[in-house]
Parts: sequence; structure tokens; C-alpha cells
Amino acid sequence: MLITFEGIDGSGKSTQIAMLAQWLGGRGATVLTLREPGGTTFSEAVRSVLLSTKHEIHPRAELLLFEAARAQLVETVIRPALGRNIIVICDRFADSSTAYQGYGRGLSVSDVENCNFMATGGLKPDITFFLDIPIETAFERAAGRNGSTADRMEQSGRDFFERVREGYTLIATTEKERFRIIRADSTPQKVHEAVCSEISELIAQYTAKA
Amino acid sequence: MLITFEGIDGSGKSTQIAMLAQWLGGRGATVLTLREPGGTTFSEAVRSVLLSTKHEIHPRAELLLFEAARAQLVETVIRPALGRNIIVICDRFADSSTAYQGYGRGLSVSDVENCNFMATGGLKPDITFFLDIPIETAFERAAGRNGSTADRMEQSGRDFFERVREGYTLIATTEKERFRIIRADSTPQKVHEAVCSEISELIAQYTAKA
Repeated sequence: MLITFEGIDGSGKSTQIAMLAQWLGGRGATVLTLREPGGTTFSEAVRSVLLSTKHEIHPRAELLLFEAARAQLVETVIRPALGRNIIVICDRFADSSTAYQGYGRGLSVSDVENCNFMATGGLKPDITFFLDIPIETAFERAAGRNGSTADRMEQSGRDFFERVREGYTLIATTEKERFRIIRADSTPQKVHEAVCSEISELIAQYTAKA
Repeated sequence: MLITFEGIDGSGKSTQIAMLAQWLGGRGATVLTLREPGGTTFSEAVRSVLLSTKHEIHPRAELLLFEAARAQLVETVIRPALGRNIIVICDRFADSSTAYQGYGRGLSVSDVENCNFMATGGLKPDITFFLDIPIETAFERAAGRNGSTADRMEQSGRDFFERVREGYTLIATTEKERFRIIRADSTPQKVHEAVCSEISELIAQYTAKA
């Protein structure tokens, strides 16, 4: 099973992933948590390219670089893990490209989706949680954290994040089967309970089918 | 004007590009010659990723990495040069991805073309020369040159290059307007004359239109 978490910075993805991994582990599942871009030697190299040239990189080049790292992660880590019945939880996946580079940066959404398809080879998450918070809350949380996230968010501007949030909402509407929109401006424990309830339901469906 | 040269290793692209650049320069044109992947700080970084992880990189990740470098080259070098009426001659461009990763490695050709579109933003060469030589001749030329090209070609195998050559032929048939197939197993001078004759004709068409 492939579970992905999406949402803007500050929506609490890392916290929720850690809580869900522990919860699933406690129920005997083998869980692998991943974060994009990362998880392979190749992605680390790609990340260093992003960091070393970030001020001059064109949005389309940036998208394709993320997609390259994603392709390598899918083929060398995610697919092999799924093949061994490991539950993979991924912090961001293809929907991030659609939301950020498509809706956010204004690249053609269908073109971004074509590139997503090349990167994933058609692999889709079984379930995707969109942790939705108001942009104001995200900015407040970022300001309360380390400075670099706050700086980056300020630099991209509130309008950008509004477009990203709207983009996520649109994707979730188009892919109702796979997406769960979770209001993430309450406590971590409440969000966690909502997530677990959805996962329990999905597992029950799987078990019923098998 | 954007001129691209395509063909398998050993088809004489670099020689022909140097000869054409000199010929155009002698007629008062400002010419910029480029080679993929390269030409930007970003592409150099990408090239180093390709070199450092080449033994484990998945074909789809490799494709997307080439596309990322291409996107950056198009936006930061090619388009600005074309905007200043510079003639750009490129050693390989999007057709290389279609021929090598599509026809050669077996990725879906239409999916590769979608990624090409993202990388180029729809920019197409005005004219593309496919320097066509029999695979045997290419292997003989590689063997006569430095060892690394020969090794690389041997490693990929003759079948692979047959598929790439066939792929180029198919692309050329689909895009008749843009492609010129030039038999490249004769002398460099004869190939050069064929190239110049095509370029002269194209320039005459341009002038007639203007």
C-alpha cells in the first residue's frame, strides 16, 4: 500500500507521517517512510543541484529535475518495497508537482501530469491525504519554526500558496476516490485520529476484497 | 534560426557542426554552437549527476534528467540567442530523447514527446539534419577513435543502435518539413556540401518570405 501526504509547508505532514507510521507499526505492519526529493544517492545528487543553482533555475527545469528524482525513487525504492508488502508512506509525491509547478507556478497542468506519468510509470497512491490549513495558519506556524521555512514562504508570497491550496482542492475534487481532505488546523491528535479512521476503512475494504 | 544535428555516435556531427559554423560565419552570420547536455552551470551539474550515478540510473530518471538540462538550456541560452538573431546550432536536441530513450530504450514514444514538449516549451528546430550511417561504419569509426566511445557503444549493443537509427528514420518521415536525411558515410566535405545546399535553400525561402 502506498500512502501519500500532501499540503503546503506548515500543514503538519511530517508529524502526521511519524504518528501514522508508529500506529501502523504497532499493528504489525512493516512501514517505510520517504520524503521527496530524497531516498536515493541519485536524489541526493539532484537535491544538491537544486540547492546549488536555485536562484537561476527555470520552473520547467525545476519540475523536470523533481520528476527525475521521483522516477529513480519509484523504481529503486518504492516499487521494490511494495513488492515485499511493505507499507510506503511518502511525504509529497506527484500531486505536489501538479499543485506547486502547475497551479502555483502556472505551468500547464496537463503537461505537468504527463511528466508525472513518465516519472511514476503510472504508479498511483492508494490513498492521499491533503492536510488543508488556511494560508495564514501556515505562515504563522512557519514564523514560529526555523527562519528558513518562513523566509522561503515569504519569498514565494501568499498568492502563490493560495493558488497551490486551490490546486490541491481541485485535484482532490477530480480524484475523489483517492483523496481525503483533512482539516489540519486542529490538534495533531485530532488530525491523527481522522487519518487513522480513513486508513482503517481502507484496510477493511482491502480485507473484504481479499 | 535553430539548426540541430542528430545521429548516432560516429556519424560526424561535431565535424559537420564546426564546418557549418565556419561557413555561416564566413557569410557574416553570428553563430552559437551548443552541445547537449551542457552550456549552463545547471547542465554541468546535471552532467555530473549522470556521471556519478550512471550505473544505477533508471531509463525514465535518465530521460527526465536530460529534459531538465534541456529546459534550462532552452530558456537561459537558446531563446535569448534566437531573440538576438543569432543562429544557434545544437549537437543533439529533443529528437535524441525520442530516438534513444523512446525507440532505443523502449520508453513510450508519445510519453517521451510529452516530456520533450515540457523541456522545450514547444520550441522546434527550423531544420534538423539526421546524419545517417550504417551501424557497422559507426562502430568502425568509434573503434578508430578513443576507447571510451567504442566501449560505450559495445556495451549498449548493435541492436540498440539499430533501433535508434530506425527511430530517427521514423521521426524524419513523420516530420518531413523539418528533417533532412543526409548520408554521412561519404567524405566530410561531401556531407558539408549537402548540408550547405539545404541551408542555402532554407535561407532563400526565409528571404523570399521577408
